[in-house]
Amino acid sequence: MPTRILIVGAGAIGAFYGSRLATLDDVKVSALCRSNYKAVQKHGFRVESPKYGASTFKPEFVYGSPDEARKAKIQWDYLLVATKALPDVNDDSALLEDLVGPNTSIVLIQNGLGVEQPYAQRFPNTAILSAVTVASAAQPQPGVIQHNRWTRISIGPYLPHLDSGGSGPRPDTDQTFTERTTRLVSLLQEAKVADAETYDHAGLQFVRWHKVALNAAMNPSSVLSGGSTNQTMALDPELSRHLAGVMQEVLDTAPKILGRPLPSHLATPERILASTRKNTSGSRPSMWLDWERGSRMEIEVILGNPIRMAREQGLEMPRLQAMYALLKQAQIIRDERQKQDRQHENARSKSSPKL
Amino acid sequence: MPTRILIVGAGAIGAFYGSRLATLDDVKVSALCRSNYKAVQKHGFRVESPKYGASTFKPEFVYGSPDEARKAKIQWDYLLVATKALPDVNDDSALLEDLVGPNTSIVLIQNGLGVEQPYAQRFPNTAILSAVTVASAAQPQPGVIQHNRWTRISIGPYLPHLDSGGSGPRPDTDQTFTERTTRLVSLLQEAKVADAETYDHAGLQFVRWHKVALNAAMNPSSVLSGGSTNQTMALDPELSRHLAGVMQEVLDTAPKILGRPLPSHLATPERILASTRKNTSGSRPSMWLDWERGSRMEIEVILGNPIRMAREQGLEMPRLQAMYALLKQAQIIRDERQKQDRQHENARSKSSPKL
Repeated sequence: MPTRILIVGAGAIGAFYGSRLATLDDVKVSALCRSNYKAVQKHGFRVESPKYGASTFKPEFVYGSPDEARKAKIQWDYLLVATKALPDVNDDSALLEDLVGPNTSIVLIQNGLGVEQPYAQRFPNTAILSAVTVASAAQPQPGVIQHNRWTRISIGPYLPHLDSGGSGPRPDTDQTFTERTTRLVSLLQEAKVADAETYDHAGLQFVRWHKVALNAAMNPSSVLSGGSTNQTMALDPELSRHLAGVMQEVLDTAPKILGRPLPSHLATPERILASTRKNTSGSRPSMWLDWERGSRMEIEVILGNPIRMAREQGLEMPRLQAMYALLKQAQIIRDERQKQDRQHENARSKSSPKL
Repeated sequence: MPTRILIVGAGAIGAFYGSRLATLDDVKVSALCRSNYKAVQKHGFRVESPKYGASTFKPEFVYGSPDEARKAKIQWDYLLVATKALPDVNDDSALLEDLVGPNTSIVLIQNGLGVEQPYAQRFPNTAILSAVTVASAAQPQPGVIQHNRWTRISIGPYLPHLDSGGSGPRPDTDQTFTERTTRLVSLLQEAKVADAETYDHAGLQFVRWHKVALNAAMNPSSVLSGGSTNQTMALDPELSRHLAGVMQEVLDTAPKILGRPLPSHLATPERILASTRKNTSGSRPSMWLDWERGSRMEIEVILGNPIRMAREQGLEMPRLQAMYALLKQAQIIRDERQKQDRQHENARSKSSPKL
């Protein structure tokens, strides 16, 4: 029996890792698509990568909706969820209803903290694997994936009962969930993702907190400062001090939540800022791109959830909280204006004479 | 000899207090105008007030430039400076060169902290009086002043050598400067500004810090959140927590700079927020109005100077610093875009055919 994997939310990142796994003989990769469904159904994914070259990845099955996938009644080994994490907009865990069998693992390749919670709540007996990637990829047109840089993906089982204040080990399942993590990482490594890495629960959560430190610093600061590049922010003395302050708040909080000291392999704020100062690409954080195109930003998983987790321990991160409050309100005001603009547009088009 | 007062920067606030003082027999009030020069020279100021009614205030002399005022060679008793405080844009203390005589006092009716420093540096032997007002007034058209609400003005001599870490009292001048404060406040009270108040140096600086606490909380938060009203911010749980946090940072810092406990008569952040929640006027802070019309904001005197004063004592105010760094950069990006827009506009108008 081959290992069957379904990519849920087959955007650039999902399709990129899917295309790697699909190169293995005993793995069958399918895709649950949204806006790119027609293109992918017809042509598969065209994947271009400076590391792996150009190739076409034809999923075993391409589905246009969760219902279509449910009707196929396939026993999935891994559901790779790579949707944008917007728990304040919709609960994507509902997409997986009736796709989860006894041997299914849910793999969450998403930004931020607390993304696992809605899945753990809906599927309390299912293995949830938490994944963090630094890979950079884009989908310039439906079904065309441009992999840009990096391939690293860090994966660990999600076992929050091991957190400080948790209920302690669950010997019956903890081992199984860890084995499924190891197995997926082995498959990725076989598929030439050499820097796929296995972590234990707290180890992976530290990787998440560390990426949140970076995202919570750069992303909202770019939006709130009107679209600054990463380099501009790191070079400006006051913004640089602010960014270091945000990262430090997050890195000071993580060990108190996870009950273990911060691993020494994680880059310090100073090192991150030093390398950002050398980044001449003119790149801006993804949250700025969302803001500019009028999309919802991942505010809750990058800012809101870390703040709430800290508060549960009586801790506050003032810089993070300031940006959370300001950005959430800025999004509300922007969305209201967009709505009004659309209403005016509609009113105008109805009242104007047909030519 | 009458008391001669020159209003420097005769906008709404300067003209309002000038119009009150001009009602006194032994006081002669003149005005150094900018954009409203022609209107004021011709008609004086038309001042409308719910408290004092409508009246016309004809200055003794109206000047269109500092040079014109210098040529008049008048011995001023008080120079009332009511310009917008933008030390990062221009040093307004230079306007007063050769207008300051041995008996002249400079009265600074401006927002923020550290506004006195450029004047103290340029005129080291001159009495500088520091003034804070809560009066609300506008100039809907040149020379027409609409006084809206409140009249309170708090005035104290600026004696920074009395601060903690200062050089101690200067018996030869401290008393004189205090007497000049008392005299100006008496004149204002005679002119029916019943809530003109005299403070000592630290007392007045506490009033400044307290107003900065409010301004530093509401002003940048409105701009960074895309134009929120004061009430919206105070009603939103996260923004309200943030605003209280900013105010508390400032109120915790002030006593460490001034070497005295915070006076108990100043309203707490909780009381300020409670009253802001009841403010249904839909008003937004003045910084938002500056932002919206593309003007420079008083970022340095409201955020930058307090932050630098705190840093001199080894203190940091993280929420304030975050907003300072973000807003300063947002202003740079906005100004660059305005410049580019103007260049495009010029290029277009030059290249387009004359019709």
